Amino acid sequence: MSRTSSEKMAVLIPGMGAVGTTTIAGVMAARRGLAEPIGSLAEFGRLQQDGETVPLRQVVDMTSLGDLVFGGWDIFEDSAYEAARSAGVLSDRHLDLLRDELEAIEPMSAVFDKEFVRNLDGPNVKPTASKMEWAEALMDDIDGFMSRNECDRGVGIWCGSTEVHVDIEDVHLSLEAFEEGLRDSHPAISPTMIYAYAHLRSGLPFVNAAPNRALDIPAMVELARRERLPVAGKDLKTGQTLMKTILAPGLAARNLKVRGWYSTNILGNRDGAVLNDPGSFRTKEESKLSVLDSIFDTQDQPELYGDIQHKVRIDYYPPRGDNKEGWDNIDFSGWMDYPMQIKINFLCRDSILAAPLVLDLALFTDLARRRGLSGPQEWLSFYFKSPQVRGGRVPVHSLFEQYAMLTGQLQEFASATADQTYRYRRDDERHQAAAEATGE
Amino acid sequence: MSRTSSEKMAVLIPGMGAVGTTTIAGVMAARRGLAEPIGSLAEFGRLQQDGETVPLRQVVDMTSLGDLVFGGWDIFEDSAYEAARSAGVLSDRHLDLLRDELEAIEPMSAVFDKEFVRNLDGPNVKPTASKMEWAEALMDDIDGFMSRNECDRGVGIWCGSTEVHVDIEDVHLSLEAFEEGLRDSHPAISPTMIYAYAHLRSGLPFVNAAPNRALDIPAMVELARRERLPVAGKDLKTGQTLMKTILAPGLAARNLKVRGWYSTNILGNRDGAVLNDPGSFRTKEESKLSVLDSIFDTQDQPELYGDIQHKVRIDYYPPRGDNKEGWDNIDFSGWMDYPMQIKINFLCRDSILAAPLVLDLALFTDLARRRGLSGPQEWLSFYFKSPQVRGGRVPVHSLFEQYAMLTGQLQEFASATADQTYRYRRDDERHQAAAEATGE
Amino acid sequence: MSRTSSEKMAVLIPGMGAVGTTTIAGVMAARRGLAEPIGSLAEFGRLQQDGETVPLRQVVDMTSLGDLVFGGWDIFEDSAYEAARSAGVLSDRHLDLLRDELEAIEPMSAVFDKEFVRNLDGPNVKPTASKMEWAEALMDDIDGFMSRNECDRGVGIWCGSTEVHVDIEDVHLSLEAFEEGLRDSHPAISPTMIYAYAHLRSGLPFVNAAPNRALDIPAMVELARRERLPVAGKDLKTGQTLMKTILAPGLAARNLKVRGWYSTNILGNRDGAVLNDPGSFRTKEESKLSVLDSIFDTQDQPELYGDIQHKVRIDYYPPRGDNKEGWDNIDFSGWMDYPMQIKINFLCRDSILAAPLVLDLALFTDLARRRGLSGPQEWLSFYFKSPQVRGGRVPVHSLFEQYAMLTGQLQEFASATADQTYRYRRDDERHQAAAEATGE
Amino acid sequence: MSRTSSEKMAVLIPGMGAVGTTTIAGVMAARRGLAEPIGSLAEFGRLQQDGETVPLRQVVDMTSLGDLVFGGWDIFEDSAYEAARSAGVLSDRHLDLLRDELEAIEPMSAVFDKEFVRNLDGPNVKPTASKMEWAEALMDDIDGFMSRNECDRGVGIWCGSTEVHVDIEDVHLSLEAFEEGLRDSHPAISPTMIYAYAHLRSGLPFVNAAPNRALDIPAMVELARRERLPVAGKDLKTGQTLMKTILAPGLAARNLKVRGWYSTNILGNRDGAVLNDPGSFRTKEESKLSVLDSIFDTQDQPELYGDIQHKVRIDYYPPRGDNKEGWDNIDFSGWMDYPMQIKINFLCRDSILAAPLVLDLALFTDLARRRGLSGPQEWLSFYFKSPQVRGGRVPVHSLFEQYAMLTGQLQEFASATADQTYRYRRDDERHQAAAEATGE
Repeated sequence: MSRTSSEKMAVLIPGMGAVGTTTIAGVMAARRGLAEPIGSLAEFGRLQQDGETVPLRQVVDMTSLGDLVFGGWDIFEDSAYEAARSAGVLSDRHLDLLRDELEAIEPMSAVFDKEFVRNLDGPNVKPTASKMEWAEALMDDIDGFMSRNECDRGVGIWCGSTEVHVDIEDVHLSLEAFEEGLRDSHPAISPTMIYAYAHLRSGLPFVNAAPNRALDIPAMVELARRERLPVAGKDLKTGQTLMKTILAPGLAARNLKVRGWYSTNILGNRDGAVLNDPGSFRTKEESKLSVLDSIFDTQDQPELYGDIQHKVRIDYYPPRGDNKEGWDNIDFSGWMDYPMQIKINFLCRDSILAAPLVLDLALFTDLARRRGLSGPQEWLSFYFKSPQVRGGRVPVHSLFEQYAMLTGQLQEFASATADQTYRYRRDDERHQAAAEATGE
Repeated sequence: MSRTSSEKMAVLIPGMGAVGTTTIAGVMAARRGLAEPIGSLAEFGRLQQDGETVPLRQVVDMTSLGDLVFGGWDIFEDSAYEAARSAGVLSDRHLDLLRDELEAIEPMSAVFDKEFVRNLDGPNVKPTASKMEWAEALMDDIDGFMSRNECDRGVGIWCGSTEVHVDIEDVHLSLEAFEEGLRDSHPAISPTMIYAYAHLRSGLPFVNAAPNRALDIPAMVELARRERLPVAGKDLKTGQTLMKTILAPGLAARNLKVRGWYSTNILGNRDGAVLNDPGSFRTKEESKLSVLDSIFDTQDQPELYGDIQHKVRIDYYPPRGDNKEGWDNIDFSGWMDYPMQIKINFLCRDSILAAPLVLDLALFTDLARRRGLSGPQEWLSFYFKSPQVRGGRVPVHSLFEQYAMLTGQLQEFASATADQTYRYRRDDERHQAAAEATGE
Repeated sequence: MSRTSSEKMAVLIPGMGAVGTTTIAGVMAARRGLAEPIGSLAEFGRLQQDGETVPLRQVVDMTSLGDLVFGGWDIFEDSAYEAARSAGVLSDRHLDLLRDELEAIEPMSAVFDKEFVRNLDGPNVKPTASKMEWAEALMDDIDGFMSRNECDRGVGIWCGSTEVHVDIEDVHLSLEAFEEGLRDSHPAISPTMIYAYAHLRSGLPFVNAAPNRALDIPAMVELARRERLPVAGKDLKTGQTLMKTILAPGLAARNLKVRGWYSTNILGNRDGAVLNDPGSFRTKEESKLSVLDSIFDTQDQPELYGDIQHKVRIDYYPPRGDNKEGWDNIDFSGWMDYPMQIKINFLCRDSILAAPLVLDLALFTDLARRRGLSGPQEWLSFYFKSPQVRGGRVPVHSLFEQYAMLTGQLQEFASATADQTYRYRRDDERHQAAAEATGE
Repeated sequence: MSRTSSEKMAVLIPGMGAVGTTTIAGVMAARRGLAEPIGSLAEFGRLQQDGETVPLRQVVDMTSLGDLVFGGWDIFEDSAYEAARSAGVLSDRHLDLLRDELEAIEPMSAVFDKEFVRNLDGPNVKPTASKMEWAEALMDDIDGFMSRNECDRGVGIWCGSTEVHVDIEDVHLSLEAFEEGLRDSHPAISPTMIYAYAHLRSGLPFVNAAPNRALDIPAMVELARRERLPVAGKDLKTGQTLMKTILAPGLAARNLKVRGWYSTNILGNRDGAVLNDPGSFRTKEESKLSVLDSIFDTQDQPELYGDIQHKVRIDYYPPRGDNKEGWDNIDFSGWMDYPMQIKINFLCRDSILAAPLVLDLALFTDLARRRGLSGPQEWLSFYFKSPQVRGGRVPVHSLFEQYAMLTGQLQEFASATADQTYRYRRDDERHQAAAEATGE
């Protein structure tokens, strides 16, 4: 017996570019039997039950694709159809088939701050205001969307651009300081943070698909815990980094010595243009560089991993469009320290790899919320370059350890009886909470 | 406290070519602090104990490198020094430093049958005789080696060439039929089988580093069980196949669809020359093709893995010497079935990857024997392209599942008290057993 | 002033598969301004004139694209539209735009002999008859096509499959023997030879885009000379071999030593299926292996090029479709013989590279005929893997020497006054010649 | 009959690092029959004569290897042996065999200015002085070397580091301004310029193997012409750029459209460390970016080459040592603009490719001088990334056009009677010229 939750669920996407529209189009196509949502563990995954493997959907009560309702914000006015066309990810054939449905999705006006994304600009933005006023405008957007679409629950997933690097400051350290910062339009509060705040205040879990600092500040964790909402981030693990966290655990298992890992990326989509800005690049680079750290044990195996030269390049290269390409060279050695090399050329499609992760994260954070989990969801590390973990813990980067964590949690969901006493937060509750929050 | 067994242990190697001599030289170099035995889990691995990771050697009583004594057989008369030089794996500098010690190791005359390896020939072979007489000559060799070197235990590891494909026949189905076949010099009994038989009859565990059919016939399993000896095989997992069993589980974890996997290898060493013979190639190809089977679930996920085109090429290409090179192209697809490609170019060194596995297998099969395990050692699947499993079971190919099995078993060894009642089989016992066996 | 010949010209294609239909569609698209005929030297090339470079078309009187009329034969009944669709080379968008025009082109029934192409079969074939009767049926086809389409000249270009290797026999050595062989249906006379014979007898130059032995037998050269017709072949130089003849001359110019060149190809189209047959593969392999011969001077520079290991693999790999892929590894050395490597991965599209060559060859052989050239056209070596040369001469393989020959001849055409006395052969003349030929 | 000049000839090398010492060691090894000077056209090249190809040495009177005497300057005091060892290019075996001879070569103290090479420093430098005094000290060094070694002619070849980018200023525009600048220690006069000046003033031709601005300023051309000395530069064409100028002419000959060319380099030697400085990188990048310009005709073929995205990356990556590695991705399209890709992975050895070029340039500039050529030697473009040409001319980058120029000039040398009236400049003449120069 398939146990799926039957109510409508909103998936709200700040930044409806290539990744966002590809996700939406793919869900529409899957619903109509036009294409398979390949890469989604929620859709294709299987779990052990009584010595057999059964489809995940059969034993875990995830929302069905038919109940998802998509919306979002963007700095361009393009409908999801037009945005998908200019993203250049999907074929004309697919876009033509889905045109009407995609055209109906028009982005709400975005909170945008050029200080954080220097190589982009667009017309569909909210008027200048204090950052708290922006947050409240977003809460109104969310409220309106939920009502119009008769959704009684939802999740938000940041699919917008990489912002410039933000250092941790006092304003990030407590919810109180953060809300004062919002009112004062503190310069260290980024749009991603504002969106995260607005979603959590509205009772929606929030996921960060970009490497921006947002959910990983104490203020936001405090808010998530207070609101009893799960959060997950950050930076979807797609092309080159995905490969890295597959291959590196293999080299480590074999106790091979790694001397250097050189990675270069060429990409030509909007992401590439944004990353051409050094501020945004630094944010991305930091995220990409961290992944080898907990896979290779530099402390306990310094002879093998104590001196790895790890370099990551990202180059904006327009001829490639959304078809991101990575080239990796790994210098390693075996027996008696004789050197060998592995070169990996990955001709991937950024959004095609990212879209199923967005779907899984929407379904799984909603599920987590319904099962009463809140705060950072470490078991979702599988999906991220920089998994957000609970205070003081070291992130796991090996894809296989992440996979074990993920399937372990799902197995637990499958065997546990769902908590039927759980009630989704309603608008009135949210407003009351908002009143309390601002009233203090 | 480090608990290593202190007695001398023989490592007997049928086929002292590139892999065998590289293993020997590396152990000598490690003993003298000239080079590190990188790639050996026995030497570099760590286990969890009381919440910390500790070196494996500290908690598992493996034989120390200083107690290993090397010997073997080869169809060429070259000493280990000369064989290593002509193999071209190690540098002049290393070989010069180890020259005296390597020169002291001279191969015993080999059992050789050109029907099984058509592209090789050499002078250092035992005179024509029945296959049972050959087996007995090998037992005498083993006996002499153990006495001369005062070893009270040992292991045998086939490091010789890939033999032609052998179909299962009646002669392989029981020990009784096999021994009759030995006496009749049955054409379906290969040299590898004769070596395996001789070792097991002499009380030594046996490991098969090549893809030859030998330990994986019912007769040999029967013998191993009767003699209470562990066996392990087959076909060391080194270059391209190693990469395959690292990468494929990653694609499967992500539920990406795989459409084709094309692998080509170029290699110029003696292995390459042998594999130029179609009979030997078939044996190798079968071994290499099987590895994707249990990783991609064709039965439960036919939409993703039901139609994979898997091709494997091996080409003899002398300019490359021992520096085997693999090139893989993987065609796969993601969201909505959009295609992507991964290309992997692996510039490896065959013997440099194989040598640490030979060391680990020698140490671990001896350990298994001392802990009372016998028959096929599934927990050593980590080391093989075609892991030998217990009757009716499906081999595990994912490197990460294999790693979990391996470290799980080692963890168990670490926590269990060693069985001190275990006594190694002595020569007199062997002779008695032989008398019984032949007397029946 | 642009001097193009204005009369209609037939381009007749035996084998209307991927290459043929892509050529046709591209010319149609170019005529309607829908796509550029990129890769065609006739269309994009430039020549020096009076110290400036001017477009080739401006100074050489080639037939304009608007005057080309396409037809051909195939063993399948598919129209050019259907054939192009199943070839999978061109996008739906392009095919939709050209649908009507492509659908109007239907193949004539083919001369087919399964002895020569073992992995193909189709329904649209001429009934069993003697090979001479087949040749005459083709001449009738040509005659009919020329009349129906009011073409007063034309060329034939074999774009069909690779046939099995044919050894030279007596029947190939003179036109007389060959014609007797046609009447006797000699087994060493292939379909390609029959098409070549029929075209030349009909007064049309003939080009061989495949590696089949056909124009390169003495009988056919004799016929071409007697009929004063140019011929050109064989085996279009497209992907990997193109790269080889670009790169090898560079290594030779630098006097670098080459030790090995390993090439593998994966391709999934009809070509690949045909080459899966060992007979066809041998024909292709021979053609691909020859190209390094005259580039590296093994005789005069034996220290550098005397011992090259050159291997070529072609593997049928369906996931790739028409998108052929090559991987090359070159082992070479420099100063003091230190080794280096180059690896080339060529993700090409077979038909996209071949189509402009087909166009150029059609235009240039027609031009050659109008300028009075006959027999093998060495100056067209630029287009072929195995250029057909005049008796006793060594083929030039370096792309750059070939380019110099090609542009040199075109320069000569440009500066010479065209021979206005030349008159194309008419049908009546052909019939008379046929009567003479068969009457002897 | 071999016509080689028999007198001793000095080869003076400012910057005796990896390239310089590899060149020296290779010539020594060749003289003693220990290794072949592969890659040298002077040694392995052949010319057409009377319809046959004959070894170049047989028809052109180049200095024989036995008559070369090596010397140079470096900021480190290491002998050529020690410098070669730390460069890590040559094997221990080779270095051991050549040790005595290499140790005898000790560098003279260098002119060094940290403003021009920010990531290097060394002890073996001339004391602070005006730039003219430095030039004079170098002239004294040259004079002393020529006397001590009884050389009556020589050449200088800059093999030192890449300097920071220098803009053209007034001080570079005439010899008069330049010499005034030397006296005033003008900041836009680099060490390379000072070496070039000193060599030319001493009567020695000068070659620039680095991309530094030096010979390509009007003042230096003026000096070369006045002194009747040939000069040649700049930036040896070795790894990735060599490949580029081989491949690009092939794509251009085929009229294929090029959309993008992405090149990345990883290198770990001293060069790499120096290029880590943005100033030096800019110099190198400019040189590397220019090479496609005259190969693809952006002006006459804008549809094909008007919009190429050409990116070049150089990354310092220590694990690779001198074994530089390049990875190129070329996006291009053919018929109807369908896209294809070529990827090239070049595992090269920088100094192994550069050394034969240094030898050729030494022999050929000396030859040019003896044949009466002076100023920039365009026919040597074959060797350079940024060939220095005569005023107002466009450099040729296609390796094949360069090769034609080179062999054309050599053919001319071979057929012409050598000018026997030519007399090398002697020291006394040099001093007189110097007196005139400074006296003006």
